[in-house]
Amino acid sequence: MNIPASVRLVEVGPRDGLQNEATQVPTTVKIAFVNALAAAGHSTIEVSAFVSPRWVPQMADAAEVFAGIERRDGVRYTALVPNLAGLERAQKAGVSEIAIFAAASETFSQRNINQSISASLEAYAVVCRHAAAARLPVRAYLSTVFGCPFEGDVPIPTVAAVAAQLIEMGAYEVALSDTIGIAHPGQVAPIVDAVAKHVSRQQIALHFHDTRGMALVNVSAGLDAGVTTFDSSAGGLGGCPYAPGATGNLATEDLVYMLNGVGIQTGVELERLFDASRLIEPHVGHALPSRVYRADGSHTR
Amino acid sequence: MNIPASVRLVEVGPRDGLQNEATQVPTTVKIAFVNALAAAGHSTIEVSAFVSPRWVPQMADAAEVFAGIERRDGVRYTALVPNLAGLERAQKAGVSEIAIFAAASETFSQRNINQSISASLEAYAVVCRHAAAARLPVRAYLSTVFGCPFEGDVPIPTVAAVAAQLIEMGAYEVALSDTIGIAHPGQVAPIVDAVAKHVSRQQIALHFHDTRGMALVNVSAGLDAGVTTFDSSAGGLGGCPYAPGATGNLATEDLVYMLNGVGIQTGVELERLFDASRLIEPHVGHALPSRVYRADGSHTR
Repeated sequence: MNIPASVRLVEVGPRDGLQNEATQVPTTVKIAFVNALAAAGHSTIEVSAFVSPRWVPQMADAAEVFAGIERRDGVRYTALVPNLAGLERAQKAGVSEIAIFAAASETFSQRNINQSISASLEAYAVVCRHAAAARLPVRAYLSTVFGCPFEGDVPIPTVAAVAAQLIEMGAYEVALSDTIGIAHPGQVAPIVDAVAKHVSRQQIALHFHDTRGMALVNVSAGLDAGVTTFDSSAGGLGGCPYAPGATGNLATEDLVYMLNGVGIQTGVELERLFDASRLIEPHVGHALPSRVYRADGSHTR
Repeated sequence: MNIPASVRLVEVGPRDGLQNEATQVPTTVKIAFVNALAAAGHSTIEVSAFVSPRWVPQMADAAEVFAGIERRDGVRYTALVPNLAGLERAQKAGVSEIAIFAAASETFSQRNINQSISASLEAYAVVCRHAAAARLPVRAYLSTVFGCPFEGDVPIPTVAAVAAQLIEMGAYEVALSDTIGIAHPGQVAPIVDAVAKHVSRQQIALHFHDTRGMALVNVSAGLDAGVTTFDSSAGGLGGCPYAPGATGNLATEDLVYMLNGVGIQTGVELERLFDASRLIEPHVGHALPSRVYRADGSHTR
């Protein structure tokens, strides 16, 4: 394994995690959860999404969550925005940066955001111009990079081209995302290398779901490919692996345990992460799937 | 990741897996399970253990299981034996080879097999001599290599010394075992390299439990360290990760999915493995934890 001195973690539990949970979590609990994640040492926390409440009811309280959280120095509190209306709401809420989300698969783009890839990129370019004017950094997600539930394999040149366009329009980073948790480590270097022909490796993040238990070994392959930014979700929030079709995010605890083991700094403290997971767990209606949390964190105190 | 053309899998579900399950599985089901594992392409299956039925009630029917299974050409049907009495029973049952089990931690050795490490090695040396006379190959497990529940860290020189003695007394292979599922990938190369000073790398196998979700990334580190034999358990049999303290084995499905992905041959077919797991799952009283099985295998048919 390639061992950089440190990597940057992006905590997506409050957004990507909770968005995929069936149970509505109270706003006060979300606020406490975000504060606990910051206390654990996270420097980037995706707090919520300024999307249509009809589309994603779990994110309807985005403004209230931003209004309630404690702002720590050095922590970026981010939010997903789908369009200019979302950007406006996000600005009012005082986000540190925004995230946009495109797809590498045409069918997934149509089904997920009801736009073709090219139409979505045109719209995001406008969002990026407005964000730049407001001095808001933009992060981009690129979904279905490792496989699409509708199209199967996604051509690597398409992935590379869309990733390049997202950076070109102003995103500081593109998170190559395994939306359905189907990636295996053999895919990681070819895809990262193809994208790295257009953007710097420092602009590439990897976002894995642990549906098939491959997330950590994919991170390991990502480290070997020179990537140093990884997304994860406290407790593996985002769907219970015991339910068919569930697609939990890579658990932050599992990632930190591995990185601690090989001596890669993250700035995140495992015991404080357990605090955050213990705080949210009673509100999602099932045991959190993180194996490190289950083994070492869920039953302490 | 280092990518050999193929690796050898040792299927330990019927023994190490079932031994750690609380529910007594009927003998006929065990027989069908072993047959299904052979049909999936496994070349080495640890079928049972000739240990005291009072000590391990789940293994009390070892002779009946061996009497009932179909013997396929090219498949080794193995059994754990603790002593000469066990060896005698194993021989009568017609095992292809036996496995002995020592510990790298003195306290664990005392608690697990009620002997000091050196006393156990003396006894196993006698078992090895008798096995050699009967032309039975011997595999050795070395437990608590990556950490001991009583002693914590286990000195690497002790691991290397005991591993070397097991090979010297006649074992063809030593399986370095992470008994409590605490290993991280940073430990793998130092331990394998230390053992490889005394024995050939082809004589080293790795046996991981997935308690903290590290098993696959540890296998990846093992491949990098030149190891080409790995133990796993169909479905991740051996304890549910949702129960505190559970210590499920690395799931064969997850291992095969990863190895398929990176192009390493195993001879084992994923779909046929699902058949074996679907066969055993209703008899263990909980959902099998393999994530690949849960995502792709448990709800088909």
